[in-house]
Amino acid sequence: MLKRERISNNVIRRLPMYLRKLDELIAQEVDRISSNELGRQMGLTPSQIRQDFSCFGEFGQQGYGYRVLDLREQVARILGMNEHLNVVIIGVGNLGHALIENMHFSQLGFQITAAFDSNPEKIGDHISGVTVFSSDKLVEWLKANPTDIAVLTVPQNVAGDVAKTVAECGVRGIWNFTNIDLDLSNTNVFVENIHFSDSLLALSYYIGDKSRERTE
Amino acid sequence: MLKRERISNNVIRRLPMYLRKLDELIAQEVDRISSNELGRQMGLTPSQIRQDFSCFGEFGQQGYGYRVLDLREQVARILGMNEHLNVVIIGVGNLGHALIENMHFSQLGFQITAAFDSNPEKIGDHISGVTVFSSDKLVEWLKANPTDIAVLTVPQNVAGDVAKTVAECGVRGIWNFTNIDLDLSNTNVFVENIHFSDSLLALSYYIGDKSRERTE
Repeated sequence: MLKRERISNNVIRRLPMYLRKLDELIAQEVDRISSNELGRQMGLTPSQIRQDFSCFGEFGQQGYGYRVLDLREQVARILGMNEHLNVVIIGVGNLGHALIENMHFSQLGFQITAAFDSNPEKIGDHISGVTVFSSDKLVEWLKANPTDIAVLTVPQNVAGDVAKTVAECGVRGIWNFTNIDLDLSNTNVFVENIHFSDSLLALSYYIGDKSRERTE
Repeated sequence: MLKRERISNNVIRRLPMYLRKLDELIAQEVDRISSNELGRQMGLTPSQIRQDFSCFGEFGQQGYGYRVLDLREQVARILGMNEHLNVVIIGVGNLGHALIENMHFSQLGFQITAAFDSNPEKIGDHISGVTVFSSDKLVEWLKANPTDIAVLTVPQNVAGDVAKTVAECGVRGIWNFTNIDLDLSNTNVFVENIHFSDSLLALSYYIGDKSRERTE
């Protein structure tokens, strides 16, 4: 337990990347892989990979490498994919809609239990099997249905209030798409932000850099 | 130039975070800020901040700190926000639609010049001033209108082909929402991926970790 708490955020952030790569290897029917080869395919050094996995226990065998299926199972477990976390989507605009339809939550081990929207025209809709309820019912619903994660795809002007509400109702994590910094510092709620603009600006930097290499 | 190429990805990824913080400070009418205070507000060490900015030149003054407006301008410039990069959106499903409507591309210095979709019912639509053209016109359009960035919000089964097409038409960067690893290794195109699932799984890890702290 103590060991686990010291794991750096950089390692945590690499775990889903390992998962994607391992799923790809499984699809290619690769049984085992060395840290050298895994590193080559992922652009990491073999020692980085061995170090990452050693944070969680001994998964590999010297001279043999990693069993792909075993390692995938361990990574999935560490990420909490076996815990059947419950997810609600708050805000069923285009983005909320897209997430429900296109993100394969259940394949990742999550279960979308409900969606909420304040637009009366959307209430009662079913999107890929998920029912849209009125935002007015949110508190009541969360109290009756303990929920692990709230996905925030609401307009910015209500984001703070909605976040406070779900925190008070015992939600443990907020997946925040609103580009607003939520202040939940006096709660136990973990906030994970998707900042689209950060990603776009990084892209902008990298293509700018390249074009300068060519022209200067 | 040489100096610039050595800048680590971690520094680049922090630049948009600085930008957001600086915009917040400007909104609060803060004129200048020390690396100590900036670090405190961003959860970074002052020396980390000084190191990050020193990659790009000398922006601060010892004992005085950073002028917020100047620093914001420099960060924006470094990120290419003054270059008026042209963007097309390919795939106007819910996600493409949400990006056009909710991402403030122009505030970030980008210009959406067109959107494309293969659904005849969407062709000719105007979304927040952006016209949707037929995917059949994509190649012709890109050849006539040099484009910096293509946003890929198409279904997975066509993602690879579309990426190849836009690369051949001279697009310099792809913002890839398809969760498919695009193989453009033999081109100069930079691919920036948005992997929603990586973010959700990190959230899952962090809330799992916390709940274990409470219960064990």
